[in-house]
Amino acid sequence: MTTAFEKLQQALRKLPGVGYRSSERIALHLLVAKPEQLSALVDALGEASRSIHRCSRCGNLSEGPLCAVCSDTKRDQRSVCVVESVPDLVAIERSGSWRAGYHVLHGKLSPLHGVGPEDLNISSLVTRIDSGEVGEIVLALPNDVEGEATCHYIREHLPPGRDARVTRIGFGIPSGGGVLYADSVTLRNALEGRRAFS
Amino acid sequence: MTTAFEKLQQALRKLPGVGYRSSERIALHLLVAKPEQLSALVDALGEASRSIHRCSRCGNLSEGPLCAVCSDTKRDQRSVCVVESVPDLVAIERSGSWRAGYHVLHGKLSPLHGVGPEDLNISSLVTRIDSGEVGEIVLALPNDVEGEATCHYIREHLPPGRDARVTRIGFGIPSGGGVLYADSVTLRNALEGRRAFS
Repeated sequence: MTTAFEKLQQALRKLPGVGYRSSERIALHLLVAKPEQLSALVDALGEASRSIHRCSRCGNLSEGPLCAVCSDTKRDQRSVCVVESVPDLVAIERSGSWRAGYHVLHGKLSPLHGVGPEDLNISSLVTRIDSGEVGEIVLALPNDVEGEATCHYIREHLPPGRDARVTRIGFGIPSGGGVLYADSVTLRNALEGRRAFS
Repeated sequence: MTTAFEKLQQALRKLPGVGYRSSERIALHLLVAKPEQLSALVDALGEASRSIHRCSRCGNLSEGPLCAVCSDTKRDQRSVCVVESVPDLVAIERSGSWRAGYHVLHGKLSPLHGVGPEDLNISSLVTRIDSGEVGEIVLALPNDVEGEATCHYIREHLPPGRDARVTRIGFGIPSGGGVLYADSVTLRNALEGRRAFS
């Protein structure tokens, strides 16, 4: 319709889950139906961009120096779950299955995409273990080649004097899934990960 | 997670088609994965908000004094299609079934919601007819009580000296729809709107 309109549509279309039709719908909503929401959205984006940064300890999103997880005194901060990204952390928090600390790498090793150890939040994890602050790490990294490589790298670069317990989350058939529909790699993971049934 | 984060999520959730999960996904996308898109989005919103306003002639969205439709000299601006909203105009344009002018009312008469004629872009439509600029109007207003009332109001307030042709779009079974699944009102509309079949 107009240049500024098209530019707005293009910016909206880059958001996850927003296609051509929904970008048009959102743009018309903000310009015609609810113009008061536009400035509220701009304010919220600006405030979030200014005040949200990485937690200095674990790399999670945070407004203060420490994030909500790290400043929660009820959590055992000596155990940390190592995740690739903040959305992964959010997913684990939502499941309610981990009530200790985290460490967000903000990526995984990928020589093909030029991502090396220095691009990831790994050195601060080593420092946390070396200082004795962390005694157990659970590697909740993806079940792919790059996740595997990242796990190996971390294990090989643990500080020598410290005896931290290192585990990796289990892989296998997802909840509600059957053997028939699982691919071969998942089935191999599931068989390798078999546990005593009592 | 954090206050600014929750505020951003709430602002995003007010957009059409964005629920709880997608607001979280979009917020994390803008803050963690692609922070460079955040400022681009803020710029696009700001520019759109500053430069897009109503066309002085028909009420459509426009960056200049006249919108793209009104400044298109290939269109017969003497025929105007009267629509409730800009999204309705966009839908008709997308269908490619109308190549003349428009007039956007920005609402429909609704005493229950306190919307009277003075809240709508009706007086400028009457002026366009009175000046002789417009000789035909097609009422493409919704098939509901309020759309009906708005059509009646417009017909009764046409300038007396002018003999403008007034029609209303047809109602009936939608494309691909069958009689079996149509509700009673649609069937009545369809029967009332029957046309010679030759």
